[in-house]
Amino acid sequence: MKAARYYGPGDIRVEQIAEPQAKAGQLKIKIAWNGICGSDLHAYLAQVTKFPTLTEPNDLSGETLPVTLGHEFSGTIVGVGDSVDGKFKVGQNVVISECYSCSHGDTNVCPSTNFIGIGGWGGGLSEYIAVDANLVHILPDSVSRAMIEPLAVAWHAMKRAPFCIAIEFEIPSLAFKIGLFLLKILRSFGPTSTIIVSEPAQIRRNLASKHGATLVLDPLNPNDPVDAAVLKATNGVGVDVVFDATGVQAAVDTALLSVRPHGTFVNIAIWEQRPSLDMNLVVFREITVTGSAVYRGNHPELLEAVAAGKLQGLEELITQKIVLDDVVDKGFKALINEKDKQIKILVHP
Amino acid sequence: MKAARYYGPGDIRVEQIAEPQAKAGQLKIKIAWNGICGSDLHAYLAQVTKFPTLTEPNDLSGETLPVTLGHEFSGTIVGVGDSVDGKFKVGQNVVISECYSCSHGDTNVCPSTNFIGIGGWGGGLSEYIAVDANLVHILPDSVSRAMIEPLAVAWHAMKRAPFCIAIEFEIPSLAFKIGLFLLKILRSFGPTSTIIVSEPAQIRRNLASKHGATLVLDPLNPNDPVDAAVLKATNGVGVDVVFDATGVQAAVDTALLSVRPHGTFVNIAIWEQRPSLDMNLVVFREITVTGSAVYRGNHPELLEAVAAGKLQGLEELITQKIVLDDVVDKGFKALINEKDKQIKILVHP
Repeated sequence: MKAARYYGPGDIRVEQIAEPQAKAGQLKIKIAWNGICGSDLHAYLAQVTKFPTLTEPNDLSGETLPVTLGHEFSGTIVGVGDSVDGKFKVGQNVVISECYSCSHGDTNVCPSTNFIGIGGWGGGLSEYIAVDANLVHILPDSVSRAMIEPLAVAWHAMKRAPFCIAIEFEIPSLAFKIGLFLLKILRSFGPTSTIIVSEPAQIRRNLASKHGATLVLDPLNPNDPVDAAVLKATNGVGVDVVFDATGVQAAVDTALLSVRPHGTFVNIAIWEQRPSLDMNLVVFREITVTGSAVYRGNHPELLEAVAAGKLQGLEELITQKIVLDDVVDKGFKALINEKDKQIKILVHP
Repeated sequence: MKAARYYGPGDIRVEQIAEPQAKAGQLKIKIAWNGICGSDLHAYLAQVTKFPTLTEPNDLSGETLPVTLGHEFSGTIVGVGDSVDGKFKVGQNVVISECYSCSHGDTNVCPSTNFIGIGGWGGGLSEYIAVDANLVHILPDSVSRAMIEPLAVAWHAMKRAPFCIAIEFEIPSLAFKIGLFLLKILRSFGPTSTIIVSEPAQIRRNLASKHGATLVLDPLNPNDPVDAAVLKATNGVGVDVVFDATGVQAAVDTALLSVRPHGTFVNIAIWEQRPSLDMNLVVFREITVTGSAVYRGNHPELLEAVAAGKLQGLEELITQKIVLDDVVDKGFKALINEKDKQIKILVHP
């Protein structure tokens, strides 16, 4: 079968590999769509921590590079291994929660946790994958297969924050634009009245306004500093929660100046450098700084909410659908070079 | 009356000033003891943010330098102003919660909050002070007047942390050694079984062992890194909570490597420089980083606990008692130059 395999930074090759078969406890899935994620882009540009190398195998998977890329995928069951729960049947549409866990309960925060499509175990940028059945979620009939995975990331981030008012930051970065998904989730389910979005790209500011942001700010506009605008919009108090999906120093600085005393700052980005933190602000305002790592146990309630029609207009966030052979040029390179045009690119094998 | 007045870094003068009188709503208190605090030392060494300057008055107090120093004080009521609650009577022993608040409820985290003995309003390094009665707490008969204030800081920090296992860090700094008070509080009231203390000074390591630490580590011993020792002592999991009373980068780094996934890192230090934070660890382990600012509403329950005999041996933490005339040479300079000998110095006017 065809698969997009990662050999290292700048080196992704679409090539023929053996088709996987479902072992005991596994399902064989024909991939329908796989979204390209910000962490895939990180890996394309530089060596990223959770991947194995050409010579050092990953602890959990035992695999070295190349690995098949892709962890935001959906598909259809085409094979059922021995000893699999009877609820799984050939023909069902499914999504996969791709956290590959060790034996601890807190799978998403286990130090050695890893992901299908990163640590090994195959990936969504291929025609088929065989995965452990306990990672597979059956889709309700009415639910589109695309983009459940980033929605689950946003859903989990929402649950990490105790809030009434929310603000979400985006500043130019190659990080996947999880912010817009978070906006959708917050507007649909969060107990929020005011949602302030900071985002430098016009295309995303427009989408933010359309999808429910109360106030949309451009962090690169020197005449309208974000923290001052946030304080003005909240009677000088600051917001209850700031979400940061950027992973840049400026967002940390602005966040701590924008959040109210006893407020919460939730990080959902991957960081290339350690930011500095104004710890005196954290102390004297008793601010909580924390992070949200992918998801854990969030899929069932998310799928139920989507099936109930509570998340509309997601397809507007898809800017391109491409085939696997074009994954590098029309996928990775488009996301890197056309930041102002592209939001989500889906790949069909 | 005599008062130790702060004119700026390196310039504290004991001089004669007018004795204050209790206005409406105020009590006049004859000072018994005032402890020298780490923030007093900070101010002696460098300009500190909450103090006014010689030309710029503090927003809340309206005062410029000099201000009378001292905010860890206790004393006896010697005068009662008009309109004061009838529970206050001449002759009662009292302590003062010196947070000077604006109108918000969260007095300790209000951005403009300030402190008696720092922003103005007189101070404990003098013979008398007149203070608003709502800041005054009557001491139960059996309770010594010394050191209730730092105990309240430690009590508040304990309440900021949801824990079963605790670790507390101290690394050389001029910060007031709140860590030993926290150890006393945790051992007496916290639901803790394991308390690990990291402290470079032998005198404090000995005291930590004596006052209930399970394991005492020297952070300057290169053969026994603190984070590795903590992981070893907790079966590789890490501790639930780390308290940091140092305000140095090494403590932040060690703390994030020592706390378990979903654990909490509580800062109670004043920071001279912004530390860098390994935000990927914060994200992938969903660690909570927060701060604890002085106290708020903690005095009544603390005083009750002390009166019930639940905190014994506090007097061992007092290494010197001096008179006001000696406050610079035998107080400030001793704390700075004899770090391995001094813990708490109390001043009597």
